[in-house]
Amino acid sequence: MHVQLNPLGSMDLLSQLEVDKLKQNTEQATFQLFRNCCLAVLNVGSHTDSSTEIYEQYQDFRVNLLSRERGIKIELFNPPADAFVDGNIIKGIHEHLFAVLRDILFYHSRLQNQKSWLDLSNSSHVTHAVFDIMRNARVIDATNEPNLIVCWGGHSISDIEYKYTKEVGYQLGLRGLDICTGCGPGAMKGPMKGATIGHNKQRIRNGRYLGITEPSIIAAEPPNPIVNQLVILPDIEKRLEAFVRTAHGIIIFPGGAGTAEELLYLLGIMLHPDNAQQQLPIILTGPKQSEAYFNHLASFVEQTLGSEALALFDIIIDDPIAVARKLKAANKAVRDYRLEVGDAYHFNWTLKIDADFQQPFLPTHANIATLDLHLEQPKASLAANLRRAFSAVVAGNVKEEGIKAIRDQGPFIISGEPKLMQLMDTLLQAFVEQGRMKLPGSTYTPCYRVIK
Amino acid sequence: MHVQLNPLGSMDLLSQLEVDKLKQNTEQATFQLFRNCCLAVLNVGSHTDSSTEIYEQYQDFRVNLLSRERGIKIELFNPPADAFVDGNIIKGIHEHLFAVLRDILFYHSRLQNQKSWLDLSNSSHVTHAVFDIMRNARVIDATNEPNLIVCWGGHSISDIEYKYTKEVGYQLGLRGLDICTGCGPGAMKGPMKGATIGHNKQRIRNGRYLGITEPSIIAAEPPNPIVNQLVILPDIEKRLEAFVRTAHGIIIFPGGAGTAEELLYLLGIMLHPDNAQQQLPIILTGPKQSEAYFNHLASFVEQTLGSEALALFDIIIDDPIAVARKLKAANKAVRDYRLEVGDAYHFNWTLKIDADFQQPFLPTHANIATLDLHLEQPKASLAANLRRAFSAVVAGNVKEEGIKAIRDQGPFIISGEPKLMQLMDTLLQAFVEQGRMKLPGSTYTPCYRVIK
Amino acid sequence: MHVQLNPLGSMDLLSQLEVDKLKQNTEQATFQLFRNCCLAVLNVGSHTDSSTEIYEQYQDFRVNLLSRERGIKIELFNPPADAFVDGNIIKGIHEHLFAVLRDILFYHSRLQNQKSWLDLSNSSHVTHAVFDIMRNARVIDATNEPNLIVCWGGHSISDIEYKYTKEVGYQLGLRGLDICTGCGPGAMKGPMKGATIGHNKQRIRNGRYLGITEPSIIAAEPPNPIVNQLVILPDIEKRLEAFVRTAHGIIIFPGGAGTAEELLYLLGIMLHPDNAQQQLPIILTGPKQSEAYFNHLASFVEQTLGSEALALFDIIIDDPIAVARKLKAANKAVRDYRLEVGDAYHFNWTLKIDADFQQPFLPTHANIATLDLHLEQPKASLAANLRRAFSAVVAGNVKEEGIKAIRDQGPFIISGEPKLMQLMDTLLQAFVEQGRMKLPGSTYTPCYRVIK
Amino acid sequence: MHVQLNPLGSMDLLSQLEVDKLKQNTEQATFQLFRNCCLAVLNVGSHTDSSTEIYEQYQDFRVNLLSRERGIKIELFNPPADAFVDGNIIKGIHEHLFAVLRDILFYHSRLQNQKSWLDLSNSSHVTHAVFDIMRNARVIDATNEPNLIVCWGGHSISDIEYKYTKEVGYQLGLRGLDICTGCGPGAMKGPMKGATIGHNKQRIRNGRYLGITEPSIIAAEPPNPIVNQLVILPDIEKRLEAFVRTAHGIIIFPGGAGTAEELLYLLGIMLHPDNAQQQLPIILTGPKQSEAYFNHLASFVEQTLGSEALALFDIIIDDPIAVARKLKAANKAVRDYRLEVGDAYHFNWTLKIDADFQQPFLPTHANIATLDLHLEQPKASLAANLRRAFSAVVAGNVKEEGIKAIRDQGPFIISGEPKLMQLMDTLLQAFVEQGRMKLPGSTYTPCYRVIK
Repeated sequence: MHVQLNPLGSMDLLSQLEVDKLKQNTEQATFQLFRNCCLAVLNVGSHTDSSTEIYEQYQDFRVNLLSRERGIKIELFNPPADAFVDGNIIKGIHEHLFAVLRDILFYHSRLQNQKSWLDLSNSSHVTHAVFDIMRNARVIDATNEPNLIVCWGGHSISDIEYKYTKEVGYQLGLRGLDICTGCGPGAMKGPMKGATIGHNKQRIRNGRYLGITEPSIIAAEPPNPIVNQLVILPDIEKRLEAFVRTAHGIIIFPGGAGTAEELLYLLGIMLHPDNAQQQLPIILTGPKQSEAYFNHLASFVEQTLGSEALALFDIIIDDPIAVARKLKAANKAVRDYRLEVGDAYHFNWTLKIDADFQQPFLPTHANIATLDLHLEQPKASLAANLRRAFSAVVAGNVKEEGIKAIRDQGPFIISGEPKLMQLMDTLLQAFVEQGRMKLPGSTYTPCYRVIK
Repeated sequence: MHVQLNPLGSMDLLSQLEVDKLKQNTEQATFQLFRNCCLAVLNVGSHTDSSTEIYEQYQDFRVNLLSRERGIKIELFNPPADAFVDGNIIKGIHEHLFAVLRDILFYHSRLQNQKSWLDLSNSSHVTHAVFDIMRNARVIDATNEPNLIVCWGGHSISDIEYKYTKEVGYQLGLRGLDICTGCGPGAMKGPMKGATIGHNKQRIRNGRYLGITEPSIIAAEPPNPIVNQLVILPDIEKRLEAFVRTAHGIIIFPGGAGTAEELLYLLGIMLHPDNAQQQLPIILTGPKQSEAYFNHLASFVEQTLGSEALALFDIIIDDPIAVARKLKAANKAVRDYRLEVGDAYHFNWTLKIDADFQQPFLPTHANIATLDLHLEQPKASLAANLRRAFSAVVAGNVKEEGIKAIRDQGPFIISGEPKLMQLMDTLLQAFVEQGRMKLPGSTYTPCYRVIK
Repeated sequence: MHVQLNPLGSMDLLSQLEVDKLKQNTEQATFQLFRNCCLAVLNVGSHTDSSTEIYEQYQDFRVNLLSRERGIKIELFNPPADAFVDGNIIKGIHEHLFAVLRDILFYHSRLQNQKSWLDLSNSSHVTHAVFDIMRNARVIDATNEPNLIVCWGGHSISDIEYKYTKEVGYQLGLRGLDICTGCGPGAMKGPMKGATIGHNKQRIRNGRYLGITEPSIIAAEPPNPIVNQLVILPDIEKRLEAFVRTAHGIIIFPGGAGTAEELLYLLGIMLHPDNAQQQLPIILTGPKQSEAYFNHLASFVEQTLGSEALALFDIIIDDPIAVARKLKAANKAVRDYRLEVGDAYHFNWTLKIDADFQQPFLPTHANIATLDLHLEQPKASLAANLRRAFSAVVAGNVKEEGIKAIRDQGPFIISGEPKLMQLMDTLLQAFVEQGRMKLPGSTYTPCYRVIK
Repeated sequence: MHVQLNPLGSMDLLSQLEVDKLKQNTEQATFQLFRNCCLAVLNVGSHTDSSTEIYEQYQDFRVNLLSRERGIKIELFNPPADAFVDGNIIKGIHEHLFAVLRDILFYHSRLQNQKSWLDLSNSSHVTHAVFDIMRNARVIDATNEPNLIVCWGGHSISDIEYKYTKEVGYQLGLRGLDICTGCGPGAMKGPMKGATIGHNKQRIRNGRYLGITEPSIIAAEPPNPIVNQLVILPDIEKRLEAFVRTAHGIIIFPGGAGTAEELLYLLGIMLHPDNAQQQLPIILTGPKQSEAYFNHLASFVEQTLGSEALALFDIIIDDPIAVARKLKAANKAVRDYRLEVGDAYHFNWTLKIDADFQQPFLPTHANIATLDLHLEQPKASLAANLRRAFSAVVAGNVKEEGIKAIRDQGPFIISGEPKLMQLMDTLLQAFVEQGRMKLPGSTYTPCYRVIK
């Protein structure tokens, strides 16, 4: 099978120079990344979070770029059949492929061109880059009222939890709220499906289902075609910044190491004194069955970051309507705050994010070994380091490079102050027992060892 | 609780004279019907097909009309809480309420005004009335390409069958086809839910989910809010005519007496020599588990209406993609045929429907007793009479008046040529055994007796 | 030349019965009227207000209706060439032709169907009919804010006056106001042209240019294609009612007998005690050169209807910005008033219009002779009678039937109380001298004789 | 007077970094240019082509940029009153001000950022820059069919010529063609006004009126607010390239030195062998009264560039319908050609433009003195040099810097081969005599001296 696809979105207006530069990428490592992300997007129906499995199944899949004066085309050889209906690609997947082109290859070229002045060690330049990527993806709209709820949570959750995320999405949708997630399965898909029905019943035709992902996670957590706005940020740190600057409210559903990473990132930022007045409601929620999980998480937060961190969020158990009502009401506060300080509705510029939370952390054995994990340090700094530790576990679980490193050098060694290590180990152990580390069907072998 | 609702749709532009006439209805029997249909529409989430149950639960529900110079308002007292989100009515239900006002009260006034010239014993006047109601409901659009698939089937079906109807709807939606059903639960809801997801993935924002119902069935089979176009035809015969004249393809899923009624109506019409060239694909379909059901139905058709009737439809087992492909392909044939004969895409004027299929049949004990049920009569005439017999069973099962008649006078007596009676009895018995007569949870007591 | 035109607007969804009834009109007098109105609409570029001239020039023009299952078509033989661009009819004229079909033939059928209940001697039934025609023409929209300015004035005005009407239209358009006129040349075209530019500069893309006309005037004053909403009311009285019930403000530019008729109609209504609270700003305006004209008119009003009538309007000389500002500001008052009394923005239901102003006046020699023209009668009644007298002059000037009657029986004789006759004669004489009776180029022979 | 304006168009989504950079411009020369262009845009109603006059009249006009987290605002002090309606700026002018910000200041920053890789001595980089500016201005749309007619011609033309340009625009508009001009008065305004009416009659609501200008000409030829897409290219050469790459057809109306410059530029390019197959219809047209003018121009072309150049265009006298028909028909050929070679409809990438026509020519006394003006050189090269000579005359007539240079150093000296000089002098002399050099009302003192 062999198809050629016309450009969509912002890729439909490129100059010859830009088309030529895209073509030149063909020989580079970036192009392999592009090819793999295309495959992930095309393979959306599949039920695995192992990118290796996917890559092996579609070894003869190839992607090519065709340059025409009228613009760029994507050519596919032997793509997964499920992406097509009677020989035509599903429109949503077509859009996602050009989002991949835009955010992987085109942004790569753009970055090359900006080398001379864009300084990614400078905090405000990082924020500019995040904004620039989002804007170029056309997911930012200056005319929207604040109504975007970011939903975080595990890709591997129980059926009861999944239904709960759908119900919360439904209640959000009924209230005219839009959804943003990391765009994989589980807690990232449920709220979007629910909101679709809610929007439908309220005759909202322009509901947004924004997916924010990154290259190394997209294969394990491919965007469902319900996602009608897809952006791929270059790394996990920029992805997290994109989440918090576009959010007008955040829900955390049950999840594993990734969810813990997200929570710690968020708390670390919100603890900054400059953010004391920020309006950003945070709700942890799940069904009755998840109550213990949240208690556990809250206790971990309290024992590490203290009660001031605990005060930054609400836990609501088994009450989707209460969750939706609270966020709907909070939108007004968000709006008032932004108006008052002169900030935009579409991007939270005034939110202070320290370099500690912006600089990419590479989860190598060496880097993990040198993490400063002890309790007696500034809370924000501790949150940043804990965030990195959980990030490493995610990498070891589902990211290609992490898995490879562990296959070669054994599990990541997480060490530090014994009391803290004890807390981490207990939390991680609970994730394992609750099956939150990998999709069901596989036996989970921990990718880490905590030295207590 | 007490709310006032502003007019929507074609009800938002009424003259003072029209508003006054609507108000005058308040004292009449029509107003009781209006009140009950409002309740049905408001009560959409409930899980019962017993209108009595609903009416008893909401005895203190009242509806009122308020006339203002700027138009008519609906006032509700003690409506079901599920129709509201934080005190505001769900937009889809709001629309449905004004559809009820439009089709029950407003059309009633209109009919009164047209008495002097509209002759409902005249076939072309009946067709005009059906068109007029559909047009006034704004569900007919001269600019649409043929793509409307009518889906019939039971309101009480098994889980496996329900999932199958969703999957078929999904495949139709992926191919850009719109859905029309009788707008209750089961086989009438599944295809719409599936198509919603299909449309979504194909970025189709103006998907139509057309519900065509009638006053006596709406309480037992209330329209799901996904229905974004709702029309209430005054009786079952006009409802059936509305279905077949707007359809560009028809699917019949497993169902009970109502589905049999629909199939016999359709075959009776298509057997007319004038309709020999008509392009109207008909597909009976269900999962593997429904194969026996369809064989049974086909055998009944063959033994009563002959092999020519059998040739009018296809049976496709367990293959949603094949169903959707066949209908998509047939749309082209429908389009070509309409163009060739100069007929409209939005309404099949050239389809010949005999008075036998247009004149209302009142399912009273007396009328049922005198049905001419023997095999040796013209096929179309036999189909018309069989249709009436099944219609009576539907009335006895779920319609308020039918249930009341049976409570007072005992089951309907269906009698006729023994061979034919044997065939009917077997078919009905199968419906009972397969739980297709009433929603699960109730024990079914037949509302009829077949005299063999 | 020979073309067939597909239906547009509300004519694109007719039933077979309706199409058949339209076809039957072919043999009747109504059809001749339809043919002539079509010709008027097609002949828009021409520079004459003599319908006879037009009819003679296009004697071989024929129009035919074609019935198809898919609807009605208009067939034209030998239409004026200016209505076409490279063989294709100009879209605006295409729309106007179907507006003619809708309001002349279709409404005629509708009226026949309503005979049994619609009583046009009843005031509220007349108002219903006016609304029904406007609604069926889709020119009423419940969602619009009040912003429609009705502009009256002569079809034959000086160049300076014409430029002034354009400038006023421009200033209205800059302020987001829409325009409604009687849709001929002169003061009816200028404001629309001006507003088009104003809307354009303000990036208003949905500006309304509503033309309200009647069958007997349309040939002499054909709608310019800028008119994007055209309605043809059956007679001058319903046309005037349509104007005042849809207006949110009224401007009167210099004009002749027709303009005097309009002013007297308006003052007669506004003098009714029930209308004392009505918010409906009325402004008489023109360039410096027209000052004498307005003084003359004001003096006539004062001497006939008294100073209370004079208080109902403002005269603004040579200040388009002041006119536009005043009307823009008044829109708020209109809105507040309608909200307060519960009236619609799109149709002024609460405006009281007495039967005297609703019942058609046929300008025959006999009817004119019996007009009660003396000063000592109730002001509203006097206004009604004066209105009729001026209406007769308009008929004698430009309406086919009036011209014919005068050719046969000599000028209309206007007689009554000498003092009043003196006032009328002076006013009419001024109109003649100022060239306001007929388009320039012709010598005006008065169609009336005032008996002093 | 003092107002603050919210951002519009692509300026409504800027990052903090971009806003900061814009602010930094405040101190630089670019900011003075920005201020002057703002004034030109605000002063659109005025009747002078002398920028000095304008600048002197509004010495107290100031503009400022306000940075907010939510974006950039423009602040105006003492702006011309005509740009406002009741205290609110006209929307079209508001849009133009942000177009000025975007193309002067924002593009300036962008260019600074691209210094490291964008090489404006490289032909394909120049073309990229032109495209990039047009794309950033959102005036390029990949979904449009070819229908853009570029209209060139003088800003100072006779009344008869002006009416003719309106009539041509009207005929283009009636045929659904869009208009692009240099956006000043005269031949640049007429076609847009005419097309507005034509579009209106055809119910085309999204008509494009694209103005392409440059900083040094904008004050003398400010964009009329009808222009609904405004782009300011950095210099005359990029402006000309923008014209020819977006055009699907070109009309040249009578004009002076600027029009001659445009014609020579166009012919020089079309003479290139690579462009032999290009489909780009060129029509010179005007009323009967302009016939001599065009004969003169054609004779100049023939005697300098030869008959092959003459064959590249048609001259159509006094026939707007023929002009519009020819261009409408040619659009199909343009479309077919672009499809065949794989080029875009929205930008003519395959058109070959030599560096000779891309590199900015600075009209200083020194540069003009060294122009190689003799007949025996390659035709394209001769066209390029002649183009520069006429460009100098334009600069000396209406551009601020040119006028200043002449005031200081005397007229530009144009010298070369006597035969050629004779031809030029005659042509220029004709322009002077016909009043095409400056707006009427001023006495024209030539800014050049031709040495024969």
